[in-house]
Amino acid sequence: MSSVIKIKTHRELLDSRQPGHGMPGELFGRQDVFETDVEVFFHKLWILVGVTADVPEPGDVHTVDIGKASIIIVRDDDENIRAYRNVCRHRGSRIMKTTGKATVGMLVCPYHQWTYDLDGSLRHSSHMGKDFDPGCHSLIPVHVKSVGAHVFVCLADEPPEDFSKLETVMTPRFAPYDLTRTKVAHELEIIENGNWKLVMENNRECYHCAGTHPELVNSFQAEDFGFCPDGQGEDALKAYDDYVTRNAATQQAWEKDGWICERFESVDESVHTNFRTQRLVIAGANESQTMDTKVACTKLLGNVSRRNLGDVHMWGHHSWTHVMSDHAVIAYILPLAPDKTLVRTVWLVHEDAVEGVDYDLRKLTEVWNATTNQDAELVANAHNGTQDPAYRPGPFSRFTEAPLDEFSRWYDARLKQSGV
Amino acid sequence: MSSVIKIKTHRELLDSRQPGHGMPGELFGRQDVFETDVEVFFHKLWILVGVTADVPEPGDVHTVDIGKASIIIVRDDDENIRAYRNVCRHRGSRIMKTTGKATVGMLVCPYHQWTYDLDGSLRHSSHMGKDFDPGCHSLIPVHVKSVGAHVFVCLADEPPEDFSKLETVMTPRFAPYDLTRTKVAHELEIIENGNWKLVMENNRECYHCAGTHPELVNSFQAEDFGFCPDGQGEDALKAYDDYVTRNAATQQAWEKDGWICERFESVDESVHTNFRTQRLVIAGANESQTMDTKVACTKLLGNVSRRNLGDVHMWGHHSWTHVMSDHAVIAYILPLAPDKTLVRTVWLVHEDAVEGVDYDLRKLTEVWNATTNQDAELVANAHNGTQDPAYRPGPFSRFTEAPLDEFSRWYDARLKQSGV
Amino acid sequence: MSSVIKIKTHRELLDSRQPGHGMPGELFGRQDVFETDVEVFFHKLWILVGVTADVPEPGDVHTVDIGKASIIIVRDDDENIRAYRNVCRHRGSRIMKTTGKATVGMLVCPYHQWTYDLDGSLRHSSHMGKDFDPGCHSLIPVHVKSVGAHVFVCLADEPPEDFSKLETVMTPRFAPYDLTRTKVAHELEIIENGNWKLVMENNRECYHCAGTHPELVNSFQAEDFGFCPDGQGEDALKAYDDYVTRNAATQQAWEKDGWICERFESVDESVHTNFRTQRLVIAGANESQTMDTKVACTKLLGNVSRRNLGDVHMWGHHSWTHVMSDHAVIAYILPLAPDKTLVRTVWLVHEDAVEGVDYDLRKLTEVWNATTNQDAELVANAHNGTQDPAYRPGPFSRFTEAPLDEFSRWYDARLKQSGV
Repeated sequence: MSSVIKIKTHRELLDSRQPGHGMPGELFGRQDVFETDVEVFFHKLWILVGVTADVPEPGDVHTVDIGKASIIIVRDDDENIRAYRNVCRHRGSRIMKTTGKATVGMLVCPYHQWTYDLDGSLRHSSHMGKDFDPGCHSLIPVHVKSVGAHVFVCLADEPPEDFSKLETVMTPRFAPYDLTRTKVAHELEIIENGNWKLVMENNRECYHCAGTHPELVNSFQAEDFGFCPDGQGEDALKAYDDYVTRNAATQQAWEKDGWICERFESVDESVHTNFRTQRLVIAGANESQTMDTKVACTKLLGNVSRRNLGDVHMWGHHSWTHVMSDHAVIAYILPLAPDKTLVRTVWLVHEDAVEGVDYDLRKLTEVWNATTNQDAELVANAHNGTQDPAYRPGPFSRFTEAPLDEFSRWYDARLKQSGV
Repeated sequence: MSSVIKIKTHRELLDSRQPGHGMPGELFGRQDVFETDVEVFFHKLWILVGVTADVPEPGDVHTVDIGKASIIIVRDDDENIRAYRNVCRHRGSRIMKTTGKATVGMLVCPYHQWTYDLDGSLRHSSHMGKDFDPGCHSLIPVHVKSVGAHVFVCLADEPPEDFSKLETVMTPRFAPYDLTRTKVAHELEIIENGNWKLVMENNRECYHCAGTHPELVNSFQAEDFGFCPDGQGEDALKAYDDYVTRNAATQQAWEKDGWICERFESVDESVHTNFRTQRLVIAGANESQTMDTKVACTKLLGNVSRRNLGDVHMWGHHSWTHVMSDHAVIAYILPLAPDKTLVRTVWLVHEDAVEGVDYDLRKLTEVWNATTNQDAELVANAHNGTQDPAYRPGPFSRFTEAPLDEFSRWYDARLKQSGV
Repeated sequence: MSSVIKIKTHRELLDSRQPGHGMPGELFGRQDVFETDVEVFFHKLWILVGVTADVPEPGDVHTVDIGKASIIIVRDDDENIRAYRNVCRHRGSRIMKTTGKATVGMLVCPYHQWTYDLDGSLRHSSHMGKDFDPGCHSLIPVHVKSVGAHVFVCLADEPPEDFSKLETVMTPRFAPYDLTRTKVAHELEIIENGNWKLVMENNRECYHCAGTHPELVNSFQAEDFGFCPDGQGEDALKAYDDYVTRNAATQQAWEKDGWICERFESVDESVHTNFRTQRLVIAGANESQTMDTKVACTKLLGNVSRRNLGDVHMWGHHSWTHVMSDHAVIAYILPLAPDKTLVRTVWLVHEDAVEGVDYDLRKLTEVWNATTNQDAELVANAHNGTQDPAYRPGPFSRFTEAPLDEFSRWYDARLKQSGV
């Protein structure tokens, strides 16, 4: 590179961020930053890679790529979910040739037919001779944990221990919905043309929702995501006070009936497992994120018999979840390139719910289908703009964009800890 | 990179060029050289980015990408042409989502609806609180100047002052054609698979024309672009003398009638604003670059009442212009990658000319449409060849390719001044 | 690159290979390694780039790209095959615009019509002036040699001398088939999504064949490519002994009739020209690699009057050849990118053989057409897996994969000699 263009180090870029402002554009666009991001945020932390309903029966496989790493999620003969690196121990061939779902008896490498049991042990390999020890050539296992319907893996040798906090906090909140007894009603994979951090910044604020998500705003309360009183008229201030009072009353009533509402957040600079949860009131009927705010599936989840339970929301560092009385929407992102991010969204309903009888698929998926596609366009525009030499990170609204600043601080702290 | 392949510095590459020979291939193919080229030749100099007819009315917008920089050209309510960086001051989103033309009332960011006046000032941004100063968050303005129909911008803080020479020289030459009272009859955007300097080298010589541009040679005089007397027979030498005599007579007659003909060139190593102009005699009827050399539009430009005015030619470092009595063709290139260059060509006619009445679109565009596509193929072949390890820069013809040597010297000098 | 991800040198990668194991994944995936590979293994060694039947008549041209180098193979007016760099000595343009076949009178550059004779000399260039010496601007010649139907080139100034060994060994083996009197019955070009070394590793073992090539195994004897006696039952061991006895008898009978069978190998670490040859017994009728192991073309090659001559096999470092009594299959690979490799396969029959009369094209091409496409999928899976951070090179079978270890040692030695 000639002397005309100066290259900043990754650390200089991080240090150049002003508090309360966006990140410098090179953190979104540079290949080296991207590769480090994949290593630190996707290969060392616990990562959501699917749902239990992706592998309902023994022998069911779900293959997921995380950067250049490919992971086989499989339900074994004892109904346990296991995970392996999708790399044959012989010549390195992929065992599962494509991502997505399949069903197998054994895991057979398509190259030389080395054959692994669902517990990862090598059961067959011809022509290797008597000196060869199959016991040293099992598939490489991957740490895996389920919380509700969520299947998390961790590629690090020693996974972050503070994941136990997420398990402790979320397990009782998900429990009444019995999310392991769900099925995938629909799924959507799209590739957004923007950096994964811009996808997450977009997800962590709803400042943009009023102007861009006509479907979503039916069921969202804009005030949940921040409100600036400055310069507002008396009517607006009164309306905001009404929102606060009304919300508090609903939450109090829920808590009285045993529905956990307390907001919990684990996002400060010392944590590895960044997550937040709260039970959000849904506008209108307070039932579901649908166009009319009423349930889309009349067969409710798990043991639930009441429809107006709002939205148990969980945010992770690369995922978001909404659990309502009738269905759950679980989304996670996987980075593909500095400017390409895979977003997978899964809609879950009760495993016995029947399409056309208990639910209408269009009603079920309409809001998040539209919202996800709208977000893709917003993220692409934001990504492009941040790559412009004229881009200077602007100020976050401290009323509506504080979670972006939190995310930015956590991101910086994790990199610092990794030696960047 | 292993020790097998040696990497030269940008300066070593420049210094390795022999006088009178082509540039080394790495100057066309290397990513680092490309990025420096964009910075030095497109982000610091005055750049042609369109025509006044791209934004005929207040609120009309023309968005152009120059490398990773995106520029909004807009006609404001006072009919002035202004230019801004296409980056929101909040989160950096593109304000205009795509390049090309649009019409707006205000400039509204699609992300959080920050709203800017056509003068660039931030008029609306919700939720930012009383500490926020909109006055500090105007759109970033870009220097903009019009000369005839040509709209130039400069992204540098301090634009090169010698642009005034171009204004002084060209304004009286363009004046009779009143190019601001034109409309876009047609435009063509193509992406050539070659480095921008090869596109310009191709444009700065017509040595290749006789063998490759059957349409263009109808109206061009090959001798205008160089003639080597060595080894020619008496007939050829006589014909050349006739050409010189005939041309001088035509030019003298034009000058007498007040039509400026004098060739002017600003291309030496000290200038930033590299341009050349001359009035070229057109072959045949001397009217227009058409297949029959006669006007394609019977409604002549501006105040012009005479058809045989030849071709007022202007060459810049990334553009070329032909102004004839009946129409103008303005073309400019923008680099996209080491081996990708956008070429936009615009055909202008009198704003009151009516297609099908005053002009036939096919006749108007036939020559430069064909020529541009032929050039794209020549440039792609040249680019590929220069990337071959066997390529050694060959000698320019000093009779027909001297302008390539001038361009190469000017290119080197600009980089030297920038510290390369 | 940040401190999180360490980069090994090319030499460190080579030295990290354990004997008897695969190469580290970065040797397949890294751009710098790829560029060095092209330089060392394709621009310095003798490379197979086609067959004599590609240019049957004077003026016939076959253009081949080897990395960024493009080569013109041409048959001159004296019926000799010549080769030139496909780069004009003027401005570097490609002379032949596309790869593949054409027929020309002279070699004319499409840019400024510089015109070269088939002997490479510049015969015409206008406007260059009397100081210009055409004698200094001939096309750059490339070393070229034919062995049987095989056309080899070498881009190095001083080609490896040990190519003479290949000529000496192969010439008498090919002689009875008179491969210069063949025609191209069919050709197939595919791009495999894997590194060229993985394409060759795949080609150098048939451990994978039984499970992946249902067509090929009809005519192949699996035991030719290795057999591990460990753990085999008595029946299997007896069957193997029978194979050895049967094969020896066939080979002895051939030798007696003057058909050279002796296995020859030039693959150790000191050689540049890596090749191996042997006459393989074909299963079944021992005639041809077809679905029924009988000839596909009833007009036999050259002077051959006997059908059951097995398969004269020749392996090079980037090519493989099978010559049978009725046809030859010649394949070679050219690297396009770390993960892209062009594979060209040519089927040759007697020049007088008539399709539909002497041979059925489908029968002729069925086996290697299917096999090549199956191999492409295997190679892509292997390439992907080796790029996974979980990939650790596994052990080769010393019974069935020993040639991979040989190739790996030879590869390392060539790089060491080149200074890596």
